[in-house]
Amino acid sequence: MTGAPARPTTVIIGAGLVGASVGCALTAAGWPVHLVDAKASHARVAAELGAGTAEPADAERVGLVVAAVPPRVLPDVIATALRNYPNATVTDVGSVKAGVLNALWDSEPDLARYVGSHPMAGSQHSGPMTARADLFVDRTWVITPHRRSDPAAITLIRTVVDACHARPLIMDVDDHDAAVARVSHLPHLMSVLTAGRLNDIPDEDLLLAGQGLRDVTRIAGSDPDLWQQILGANAGAVLAELRQVHDQLQVLIKALEQPEGDDLKQLLAHGVSGTRRIPGKHGRAAVAYSRIVVQIPDEPGALGRLFALVGESGVNVEDIAIEHDQVREVGYLSLSVHPDTEAELIAAITANGWTVQP
Amino acid sequence: MTGAPARPTTVIIGAGLVGASVGCALTAAGWPVHLVDAKASHARVAAELGAGTAEPADAERVGLVVAAVPPRVLPDVIATALRNYPNATVTDVGSVKAGVLNALWDSEPDLARYVGSHPMAGSQHSGPMTARADLFVDRTWVITPHRRSDPAAITLIRTVVDACHARPLIMDVDDHDAAVARVSHLPHLMSVLTAGRLNDIPDEDLLLAGQGLRDVTRIAGSDPDLWQQILGANAGAVLAELRQVHDQLQVLIKALEQPEGDDLKQLLAHGVSGTRRIPGKHGRAAVAYSRIVVQIPDEPGALGRLFALVGESGVNVEDIAIEHDQVREVGYLSLSVHPDTEAELIAAITANGWTVQP
Repeated sequence: MTGAPARPTTVIIGAGLVGASVGCALTAAGWPVHLVDAKASHARVAAELGAGTAEPADAERVGLVVAAVPPRVLPDVIATALRNYPNATVTDVGSVKAGVLNALWDSEPDLARYVGSHPMAGSQHSGPMTARADLFVDRTWVITPHRRSDPAAITLIRTVVDACHARPLIMDVDDHDAAVARVSHLPHLMSVLTAGRLNDIPDEDLLLAGQGLRDVTRIAGSDPDLWQQILGANAGAVLAELRQVHDQLQVLIKALEQPEGDDLKQLLAHGVSGTRRIPGKHGRAAVAYSRIVVQIPDEPGALGRLFALVGESGVNVEDIAIEHDQVREVGYLSLSVHPDTEAELIAAITANGWTVQP
Repeated sequence: MTGAPARPTTVIIGAGLVGASVGCALTAAGWPVHLVDAKASHARVAAELGAGTAEPADAERVGLVVAAVPPRVLPDVIATALRNYPNATVTDVGSVKAGVLNALWDSEPDLARYVGSHPMAGSQHSGPMTARADLFVDRTWVITPHRRSDPAAITLIRTVVDACHARPLIMDVDDHDAAVARVSHLPHLMSVLTAGRLNDIPDEDLLLAGQGLRDVTRIAGSDPDLWQQILGANAGAVLAELRQVHDQLQVLIKALEQPEGDDLKQLLAHGVSGTRRIPGKHGRAAVAYSRIVVQIPDEPGALGRLFALVGESGVNVEDIAIEHDQVREVGYLSLSVHPDTEAELIAAITANGWTVQP
């Protein structure tokens, strides 16, 4: 791989949302990209959107192949790519990694040129028309080298991740598959079980549906065929998660049989602490908000003036609570704000004569 | 109740989000509203926001009391209100109905003046500061009369629902509680179980979290104390749901042990059909989109021109797919749009010389 160009000629196989978006990002970064799809119209749409060209590449000169096809056909597509493009590093963007590697391990002489990867981005739309160069910006993009991977091949995939402005994360294939079972495949199946129950209930009940139900069941609306492939490829890790949830469900049923006891509340609090572990959007760490407590004097219109002041400051208030001092007959307004804006809001409030608790 | 005023003097007990919002809506409709809260500052905040006055009412002249307090204290608050306001119809906005009625049934001589209700609106914010008069517009508001309810009392609660611009739905208390167990309490617990699992996994795994996980676990972040009260008050109906899910989970585990079989795919498809039963936002029926199929000639730039045309039309395209005719070597672009805009988009497309499939 010595002397390989910094932006090698690239072939993307599969011009769906992810493949076409990789094409857009690499094209924007100056890489020559060729698009291949079993449906010629998909490759043409992707090319129209700036993902590369639908013209064929000179196979000998191709330095990188990205396989962006459904899980079921991945091993075949990768093996064929290693044969057809004899000088190329081959990666894929599939959401499960161990099965693909195992399928290739014994039969594939050129496995040094294969390094798996998985960008954590997508959407409910699966076609190329929603492709965009910034789909991966600040998203985690897992790279899963194996012990036969050529170090230069790993370096090239890292360059791809950098060119897409994503955040590379090196993981072992099994660790990756266990992680997606926990943060993606299990949540998907919990959504499916919740949505499935809706088939058997009276129409009238659905008039009581609110935003919570919509949120929990949204991902259950995804393509069953694609998800059968994803779950089938990761069945072992997903089964381990489902058995854990099965045990927890039995604990929950027991707790609800004695709802006044501590067990139910502990399970609910355990859920709250779980949600707090999820990083913020685009992979930023979850923010711990700062709390500003303002004393509210007991006089008419005081709160109205404070609200107006907070509004004028332009600071985004994330949460609000009112507290009351039973003894002193005063109230406190607690404002949760991003730590970066705390000083600004305190300055605006105190400058207008209000008392902020230390 | 004969000769009762159309907009009776109203007392709202509990000036949290729902209580204060009812106050705002009724005040906007011209009802005289008095606010009472164990925390005097809450009533004052709500009054500042236009929910009524924090001054006490003349108890004899009060015609309506709305109890908007947590489930645990509801029976006491309702019983006290029936005593303190001897001429008032009393309702509540609690999310579980049978337990409250049972608690009052034997001991309460004035139960004719009580009619339960439940507006399907709320938010993760629980204080009065996010209260607004339009919180209930087009939302379902369940009214749960019982066989001792005075018909005039039922009529008055209907008037309240109308004044809040919500959609009244009369249900039996047990039917209501079964419905919320299915569309609200079960989804909440599925979210809690999913989020709870996140406590025990490596930090690194959470870097792979995407929007799906955030959606499924959002409601698990709600107040555990409030939810212990809600679930405890509806334990029987919720347990029935959990046992159903327990059975389905065992079916799912079996299906995943043979992931290539039909069972897994059928379970996934069952989830998709469940999501389709959920009505659209604000209680509108789920929209069946119209599909427009446009033939794409095999010439460079054709798709780009079509995209530009659709963009200029201003019609909101809900989904897009590309189809390909293997024999004729032409492509088809399938556009899903709201039925109301179908004719407009077809006119714009055909006026520019494109062929739309009949």
